Amino acid sequence: MAEKKMVEAITSMEEDFAQWYTDVVKKAELIDYTSVKGCMVIKPAGYALWELIQRQLDERFKATGVQNVYLPLFIPESLLQKEKDHVEGFAPEVAWVTHGGLNELPERLCVRPTSETLFCDFYKNDVQSYRDLPKVYNQWCSVVRWEKETRPFLRSREFLWQEGHTAHATAEEAEERTIQMLNVYADFCEEVLAIPVVRGQKTDKEKFAGAKATYTIEALMHDGKALQSGTSHNFGDGFARAFGIQFADKDNALKYVHQTSWGMSTRIIGGIIMVHGDNEGLVLPPRVAPIQVCIIPIQQKKEGVLDKAYELRDRLSGAFRVKVDDSDKTPGWKFSEAEMRGYPIRIEIGPKDMEAGRCIICRRDTREKIEVDLGELETRVEEILTAMQREMLERARAHRDKNTFTAVNMEEFVRIFTEKAGFVKAMWCGDRACEDQIKEKLSVTSRCMPFEQEHISDTCVCCGKPAKKMVYWGRAY
Amino acid sequence: MAEKKMVEAITSMEEDFAQWYTDVVKKAELIDYTSVKGCMVIKPAGYALWELIQRQLDERFKATGVQNVYLPLFIPESLLQKEKDHVEGFAPEVAWVTHGGLNELPERLCVRPTSETLFCDFYKNDVQSYRDLPKVYNQWCSVVRWEKETRPFLRSREFLWQEGHTAHATAEEAEERTIQMLNVYADFCEEVLAIPVVRGQKTDKEKFAGAKATYTIEALMHDGKALQSGTSHNFGDGFARAFGIQFADKDNALKYVHQTSWGMSTRIIGGIIMVHGDNEGLVLPPRVAPIQVCIIPIQQKKEGVLDKAYELRDRLSGAFRVKVDDSDKTPGWKFSEAEMRGYPIRIEIGPKDMEAGRCIICRRDTREKIEVDLGELETRVEEILTAMQREMLERARAHRDKNTFTAVNMEEFVRIFTEKAGFVKAMWCGDRACEDQIKEKLSVTSRCMPFEQEHISDTCVCCGKPAKKMVYWGRAY
Repeated sequence: MAEKKMVEAITSMEEDFAQWYTDVVKKAELIDYTSVKGCMVIKPAGYALWELIQRQLDERFKATGVQNVYLPLFIPESLLQKEKDHVEGFAPEVAWVTHGGLNELPERLCVRPTSETLFCDFYKNDVQSYRDLPKVYNQWCSVVRWEKETRPFLRSREFLWQEGHTAHATAEEAEERTIQMLNVYADFCEEVLAIPVVRGQKTDKEKFAGAKATYTIEALMHDGKALQSGTSHNFGDGFARAFGIQFADKDNALKYVHQTSWGMSTRIIGGIIMVHGDNEGLVLPPRVAPIQVCIIPIQQKKEGVLDKAYELRDRLSGAFRVKVDDSDKTPGWKFSEAEMRGYPIRIEIGPKDMEAGRCIICRRDTREKIEVDLGELETRVEEILTAMQREMLERARAHRDKNTFTAVNMEEFVRIFTEKAGFVKAMWCGDRACEDQIKEKLSVTSRCMPFEQEHISDTCVCCGKPAKKMVYWGRAY
Repeated sequence: MAEKKMVEAITSMEEDFAQWYTDVVKKAELIDYTSVKGCMVIKPAGYALWELIQRQLDERFKATGVQNVYLPLFIPESLLQKEKDHVEGFAPEVAWVTHGGLNELPERLCVRPTSETLFCDFYKNDVQSYRDLPKVYNQWCSVVRWEKETRPFLRSREFLWQEGHTAHATAEEAEERTIQMLNVYADFCEEVLAIPVVRGQKTDKEKFAGAKATYTIEALMHDGKALQSGTSHNFGDGFARAFGIQFADKDNALKYVHQTSWGMSTRIIGGIIMVHGDNEGLVLPPRVAPIQVCIIPIQQKKEGVLDKAYELRDRLSGAFRVKVDDSDKTPGWKFSEAEMRGYPIRIEIGPKDMEAGRCIICRRDTREKIEVDLGELETRVEEILTAMQREMLERARAHRDKNTFTAVNMEEFVRIFTEKAGFVKAMWCGDRACEDQIKEKLSVTSRCMPFEQEHISDTCVCCGKPAKKMVYWGRAY
């Protein structure tokens, strides 16, 4: 059964990228649909990936002083309504609990779509003095947003994420933390996931409901669409005023705290798939691959072959995540399966190799076959994984750069988005009307105003008025 | 503010155990109440404890072949209703989602109180052949049960846990897995949490809704009440028949799978508090203490003292979880705080100690003060933590044994539960009527039929008919 599913070739990405994505997600056994509409099962291969993301991101958080906590799943309706912009942004897409056991509740509870209001309610009591600040808390949990259209990892009614929520004595400190966490996300994406990102600020139209400023990292997928991969928000003292979160400062004056929040979700797994995958299936960056090396014995019934495979596994498993595929499938099947699942390295070992004291290493991203002396196995595996991690980032960066264009007027802008797909760098006057017009006409949105500004032209690409900012534009997931 | 809270002595456990518990939970800053009725905030000190439990339990799971997954938060009403006993047990205490966004849902969804039905729905499609078995899956998540009375960690409307769900080809294999996981829990409690447990089987009255057999580990708290600390259920093929989970076996016959589930929750943190805590506050077993060593500088403004404290921290922090309390509180405050928070070791270092080349180690459980030569610091800390871990388990076991009684008839049974508090070992005929009578009369329940059976008498302690089983009885949390 499992073999049968594996042979049917997946749709090629050139033919139908959306179908290719769904095929990979299903056939690499990352996720499955459920009878709960819009909700997914994350299967072992998908969850192991999330665990590695979680562990490495959590370490980076803790190195900056983040402490983990857990707040309730439910938000009373009156609490959600305290901050005006926030409730307007989220109320239309939350799930409502109206009954507990056999009784109707006195007040409806929504299942958290995000937890700003709960953290505010908590900080209101927990923060009294400047000595209690800063609070730099984070939680790993699931959230619910009642989406109409759903796609595995990219958009579902429930997803897993982390949400950091901090409170600070000064506006400067809050702004610093907002940028710091955006950089944690960006470095993590580039160093661990081999996904290059553009760092920048969202326009007012695209910012988070209730935020003073939203910062984002934007990545380009293989099909030229953009994926918002992590966001960090500075709330100023807006929530603090709505919730009454005040502290006695050193000068004894009562002041409002300044707050931030920042999140990254299982959505990023969609990013890994769409940046690195190919027509053979998933390609996982070594640093986040649950299996880094898959050993496939050739003629495994011949004496000593399986034992040799286990011996190699034992040699490697101190330093790498290794498995032996000793199932009764043919080597050909196992090769395809290992490719579909994106294992960075496949090692082939058979009687002839054993005689010659070598094995074959096949690199997933380049599909290059390398003959390796068994005496040098650990060193070569290490070298190949390191090279692969580096080159995957370089390749993704080259792809992004090749598909990043500039436009100085609407004619160019339209032509690029009609003929090509990618990022377009173009100047903007700062008016929401231009963003609205571009979105309506082309389904293109401002992805961010990058920190690294460039001067493309003097005037807004849309209205021709004097330009204020260079913006990355794109079609988004 | 924080200091003020700390000095007020907590209620002594002899005076009012329930109040002592609440005081410790609040003042050790493990948990806080929220405006969401019946739901708690797990604060950094509480969550760090849960993370250490999670990490160590998860490692033990994975060593037995468990794979982690994630299933939806919601269960459609029709799915919950598929197994008759199960829905009867849970329907009265679930929270119902009736609206998504602005629309009423076509079918109500409950927030998972446990996920047997979701795993069955998933296995129904995922299991086709004997090659797909066994499935040994687990998820870490939160669940919701609409309790009326709530207490921090022990009973709340939402709590964190893990739930393992497995499917097997044979009844024998399912039974083996059920017992295996119970033993994982029991060993974890004894080796990591220093909590001795009784392993046994629940009576039919006390077993899980839908299970063929429920196994449990039961621990005795300091006040003589019992805490069910982990359970493991064998479902036989009951759920498989209700959900139609069949596989083609090697002989090509279609057969139903045999299933198990097993769980441990944040409730166990309540157990740690009530087994080890004392009138100074929390006492944490070293293997699960987020801070194992707290270094407190004496006369920290004198030259070199703080530097020395940091130097000791740096020396120890490779092997232990260490912090320096360099706040501007007095050493006396810091001592009380370190005791309240249950840090296993407190190190005092001041100018005189530095001159003498030594420091003072104070052990939290015995409050013994030990002079230690700075040259031997690492070795001594290691020795003391190891001794503390071992002796905490021995002390808890001695307390439990001292408070475990036997009764051969109802007169003795009543007298013990009137005059004392603890476990009572007594024989039982196997009739639910006797359990009902005992519960009504004394609020005492059968905790388990222990694997290690003893012969206390020939007849049932309640009705005098021939006895079938020796049972541990107790008042439970």
